[in-house]
Amino acid sequence: MELGLVGLGKMGGNMRERIRRAGHTVVGFSHEADAADVHSLKDLVDTLAAPRVVWLMVPAGGATQSTVDELAELLSPGDVVVDGGNSRWTDDARHAEQLAAKGIGFVDCGVSGGVWGLENGYALMYGGDAEHVAKVQPVFDALKPAGDFGAVHAGKVGAGHFAKMVHNGIEYAMMQAFAEGWELLEAVDEVTDVRAVFRSWQEGTVIRSWLLDLAVRALEEDEHLAQLKGYAADSGEGRWTVEAAIDNAVPLPAITASLFARFSSRQDDSPQMKMVAALRNQFGGHAVESK
Amino acid sequence: MELGLVGLGKMGGNMRERIRRAGHTVVGFSHEADAADVHSLKDLVDTLAAPRVVWLMVPAGGATQSTVDELAELLSPGDVVVDGGNSRWTDDARHAEQLAAKGIGFVDCGVSGGVWGLENGYALMYGGDAEHVAKVQPVFDALKPAGDFGAVHAGKVGAGHFAKMVHNGIEYAMMQAFAEGWELLEAVDEVTDVRAVFRSWQEGTVIRSWLLDLAVRALEEDEHLAQLKGYAADSGEGRWTVEAAIDNAVPLPAITASLFARFSSRQDDSPQMKMVAALRNQFGGHAVESK
Amino acid sequence: MELGLVGLGKMGGNMRERIRRAGHTVVGFSHEADAADVHSLKDLVDTLAAPRVVWLMVPAGGATQSTVDELAELLSPGDVVVDGGNSRWTDDARHAEQLAAKGIGFVDCGVSGGVWGLENGYALMYGGDAEHVAKVQPVFDALKPAGDFGAVHAGKVGAGHFAKMVHNGIEYAMMQAFAEGWELLEAVDEVTDVRAVFRSWQEGTVIRSWLLDLAVRALEEDEHLAQLKGYAADSGEGRWTVEAAIDNAVPLPAITASLFARFSSRQDDSPQMKMVAALRNQFGGHAVESK
Amino acid sequence: MELGLVGLGKMGGNMRERIRRAGHTVVGFSHEADAADVHSLKDLVDTLAAPRVVWLMVPAGGATQSTVDELAELLSPGDVVVDGGNSRWTDDARHAEQLAAKGIGFVDCGVSGGVWGLENGYALMYGGDAEHVAKVQPVFDALKPAGDFGAVHAGKVGAGHFAKMVHNGIEYAMMQAFAEGWELLEAVDEVTDVRAVFRSWQEGTVIRSWLLDLAVRALEEDEHLAQLKGYAADSGEGRWTVEAAIDNAVPLPAITASLFARFSSRQDDSPQMKMVAALRNQFGGHAVESK
Repeated sequence: MELGLVGLGKMGGNMRERIRRAGHTVVGFSHEADAADVHSLKDLVDTLAAPRVVWLMVPAGGATQSTVDELAELLSPGDVVVDGGNSRWTDDARHAEQLAAKGIGFVDCGVSGGVWGLENGYALMYGGDAEHVAKVQPVFDALKPAGDFGAVHAGKVGAGHFAKMVHNGIEYAMMQAFAEGWELLEAVDEVTDVRAVFRSWQEGTVIRSWLLDLAVRALEEDEHLAQLKGYAADSGEGRWTVEAAIDNAVPLPAITASLFARFSSRQDDSPQMKMVAALRNQFGGHAVESK
Repeated sequence: MELGLVGLGKMGGNMRERIRRAGHTVVGFSHEADAADVHSLKDLVDTLAAPRVVWLMVPAGGATQSTVDELAELLSPGDVVVDGGNSRWTDDARHAEQLAAKGIGFVDCGVSGGVWGLENGYALMYGGDAEHVAKVQPVFDALKPAGDFGAVHAGKVGAGHFAKMVHNGIEYAMMQAFAEGWELLEAVDEVTDVRAVFRSWQEGTVIRSWLLDLAVRALEEDEHLAQLKGYAADSGEGRWTVEAAIDNAVPLPAITASLFARFSSRQDDSPQMKMVAALRNQFGGHAVESK
Repeated sequence: MELGLVGLGKMGGNMRERIRRAGHTVVGFSHEADAADVHSLKDLVDTLAAPRVVWLMVPAGGATQSTVDELAELLSPGDVVVDGGNSRWTDDARHAEQLAAKGIGFVDCGVSGGVWGLENGYALMYGGDAEHVAKVQPVFDALKPAGDFGAVHAGKVGAGHFAKMVHNGIEYAMMQAFAEGWELLEAVDEVTDVRAVFRSWQEGTVIRSWLLDLAVRALEEDEHLAQLKGYAADSGEGRWTVEAAIDNAVPLPAITASLFARFSSRQDDSPQMKMVAALRNQFGGHAVESK
Repeated sequence: MELGLVGLGKMGGNMRERIRRAGHTVVGFSHEADAADVHSLKDLVDTLAAPRVVWLMVPAGGATQSTVDELAELLSPGDVVVDGGNSRWTDDARHAEQLAAKGIGFVDCGVSGGVWGLENGYALMYGGDAEHVAKVQPVFDALKPAGDFGAVHAGKVGAGHFAKMVHNGIEYAMMQAFAEGWELLEAVDEVTDVRAVFRSWQEGTVIRSWLLDLAVRALEEDEHLAQLKGYAADSGEGRWTVEAAIDNAVPLPAITASLFARFSSRQDDSPQMKMVAALRNQFGGHAVESK
C-alpha cells in the first residue's frame, strides 16, 4: 500500500525504511529537505491516491496540532490520519473530532522500539474505530516485530497513546527497580563483582528481562558507570501517567517514586532539603552545611 | 559427585531430582520420613565419603541454625556446608565462623527458580572462599540453567544471600510496576481490552520480561483477576532489602513502596487512615465513615 | 463597608456572621432562599453602592464559572470580585481576564478555618493587584484571626489559591505523619497508653501543633478510633498540589504518599494487589487468597 | 531529691541546670573534667545516699552500655538507673534485665527539647515499672514543661525510647511536609512573597505548629535559605522508626520518604540515577550527561 509519512527524524526515518523493506510505498515529508521525498504537505497529499493514510511522526503538542490543522484542510473524506508521535492521550479525542468533521478518520498509535526498532520491529498500540484501523493494518503489520505479539488494537481513540503512556510508566519503575538494586549491591563489601551478578541474572531468575540485558550491556562498557552523571531526563509520559492516575484515584507509589527520583536527579541543590536543614538547625542546633 | 541434601520440601525435592538427572548421587534427609533417603543427619554424614558437601534447604532462622549446630559436630575438617535456604545474609558470617572453628567450609547460596526450576534450572548466587566454592561446583553446574548465565560467585560469605535478597527486592518493584500499570489501564473506558495490551507487550517493547509473560498467563486464566483477593504476603527478603538499604543510607523509594503496598493489602482496615479520617472530621466537620 | 456575599453554606454562612460582627454590612445571596438576604444576583448587585465588592463562596468549577459569567454582565467598571471558594488556581487567571475585559477587578482568596473559623478567624491567602486588594482589605481584616498573622497578600492573581492549595498539601502530609506514628505506637505491646503519649506531646516537643491537639481531641472521644473506618476522602487540593509539582518538576514524595494513602483507603479491594498476588502465584506457586 | 547525672554535654549540662533551679541536688559526672562535680562514677555513687537515682545522658550504643556495665557493679539493690539518651529502644530490655539481676531498677526516658529545653522544659516519655518511675518522679517534674502536658509514663521498659523514636519519625515527615510545600511555592512566579505566606500561616490555619514557627524564624534570617546546602543528616531515630514499622508490617510511606530524601541529599552523585541514565541511553539513544 501507499503511506504518507510526516516527520523523518530518528524514529520516522527508520520507520520509513522498515515499511519500505516490507514492500510498501512511503512518501515522506519533513521540514528538513534532505530527508524528504516531497516538498510540502500538499505535495504529499497530492502524490497519494485516495483513500489516503497519512502517518504523523512529529513532536507532540504544537507541531502535531498544526500538522493536523493543515491535513484537515488538505485531505478528503475517507482518508485516515495516524498520530504515531508521543502525543498526550488527551489530545487524541480532540484531533479525532476535528478530522471527523471533515469525514477524515483518526487513529492514535503509541510506538515503542527506540533505536532497535528498524531491525527488531516496533511495538504498536493503537486506538480508534475498526474501519479506520483496517485501512492502516498493512503498515502496522510491516512495522511490528516478527512474532505473534507486538501490536494491539487497544480500544477507542486515545487508547493507543494511553497504553503506550502506561507502558512507559511501567518502564520508569522497572528501570528504577534495577537502579536501586544496583546501588545497594555496589554499597556493600561482601559483593565483590556486581556486574557478574547482573550478568548471571539473565537466566533462570524472576527478573530476567530486556531491561536487565541492557543493564548488562551498559555495565560491560563501564563497570561502575563511572563515566556517567546521575542525571535522568523525562519525556512526559511518566508525568502523564501519574496525572492520569490522580484523575482516576489510582495509587501509583512505585511509578511516582521513579518519576520523582528523576526530578531530584536534575537538581544541583535541593531547595526542600535546605528547609529540612534549616529546621534541624533551628530546633536542635544541628550543624548545617553552608555554601 | 556425592551430595548430602537436607530439606526435601517443594524446592529441595525438585533440586534433588535435577541434580540426580545430571548424574550425581544425592543423599537426601528430611524430617518427613517418606521423602528421605536416610533417617538422620548422622546417617547422612556417615553415608557420604569425605570430603563431604552438605547442602541445606531448610527454613531460615531456627531450623537452619540447629542444622548448622548439628553438622558442626558431625562433619570433619575439609567438609563444606552450603546454605541454599532463604537465610538472611547477616546469618552467614556467623555460620561460617562457627563451622570454620571446626575446619569446615561454608558457602551461602541464594536460589531462584520456584516451581519452574526443575525443568529450566535454578539461578544461583553464591558467596564464600574459592576453595569451598570449588568443592560445590559440580552441583552448581547441575542446578543452573543450560545457558551461559544463571550462576555467579558473587563474593565473600554472605554475598550469595545478599545478591538473592536484592534480586527479590528488584522483583518486588517490578511486580508492583506491572500491577500499577494494569490497575490504571483497567480504570479507563478508552482501553477496552487490557489483556490484549499486556499480551502485545511481549514483543518489541522496553518492558518485555518473564514477569510480563507470567502476567499474561494469569490474565489468560482470569481476564480481570476476579477470582483473586488483593492480598499479597511477603517472605522476608523485601524487608531485609529495605533494612540493608537503611544500614547503608541508600534510598530505595520504589522497592519500599512495593513492600508497603503489600503490608497495606493485608489490613482489613487501616488504622492510620482512621486517624486521617478523625483529623479531617475534627478540623473540617468532614463526614466520616463509621462502622 | 458593604459586601456582597454569594454562597451561604457551612463556610459562607459563618463568614457572613463574622464580617457582620466586625460592623460591616453583608448582603448575602444563595440559591437556598432561607439563608439569603436578596432573591437574585441582580438584586444583590442593585442593593450595593458602587464601587462594589462581591465575594464568591460557591463550589469550585461550574458553579463558580457561571457566577463569574453573570457578574461580568451585572457589575460595573471599578467593582471587584473575590473568589473565596476552593477554585483550582489555574482558573483564576481566566476569571481575572474575563472580568478585566469589563473593567472589573479580581482577587482570588484561599480560606482556611473550617468549623472553627467563626470564633477564631479565618486564615486568608489572596492574590491580585494591589488596587483590587485594597478595596477588599476591610473584609480581610474582619475575617482574619485576631493576632499579627493569618492573612497574606501572596502575589499575583492565582497566588492566593496556590498558597492555599500548598497549605492543604502540607496538611495532608502532616496528618499522614501523625497517622503513621499512631498506627506504629498502637502496634507494639510495650506502649500501653498511646493516647497518653499523644496527649503529652502537646508541650515541649518538636511536633506540637494544632493537628496534634485535634488528634488528642479525637482520641479523647474514642481511644482507639474503633468507631471509625479507615476511609479518607480528598477534596482536590492534594491532587492539584501534586499536579503543580509535576508541572514544575518538584519532587513531593511525602505529600504524594499521603494522597495515595487516601486513594487506597477508599478501595474495597486493590486491583494492583490482585496482580501482585497473581504474579507470586505464577512464579512461586505461592498460595493466593481467593474470594 | 538527689540525682546522679552522667553526661554533661549540650543536653546534659542544660538539664543539670534546670533540675537545680527546681531545688534538687545534682551530682554530675562527665569525662570532661571541667564540667564534672565528681571525678569518677564511683565518686558519684559514693556521694549519693541510697536509694540512688542515676540518670544517663551519654551517647547511645557503646558508651551507654559501658556505663550500665559499671553501674551494675557500683550500685545497690533499690537504686534506679534512668537512660535518658538516644538509645535504640531494643537496647532497653537488655539493660533492664542486666540491672534487675542486681536488684537495680531501670527506666528508659526519651527526651525532646533541644536547645530550647533549659527555658521551656523538656518533653519526657518514659517506660518502666511504676515503682521505679516513682523514684524518679521529682526529676521528671523538674524537667518537664510548666503546663499540664509534656511528660508521660508510656508503658513498659522500652516504651519511653519507642515513643520518642516515633515522635522523631513524625517530626521527619512534618519537616519534609513544610520543606516540600516551600519548594513548590518558591517554584512558581505567581507567589511573589513565599516568606510572607509562611509567616501568615502561623494563625488560623490547620498547619500551625512549632515547626512552622521555626521555619519562619529560619526564613527571617535568610529569605531563600541561600546560605544553606540542601544536605540533611539523620540521627538514627528515623531509621529505627522505619525498621520498627517493617518488623510490625506497618506501612509508613511518608516517614520513609522523608528518611530517603535525607539519604539522597547527602549523595554528591546518585549511583541509581547513573543506572537510569545508562538504561535510557541503551534503549533510546537518549543523551546522557557525562562527567
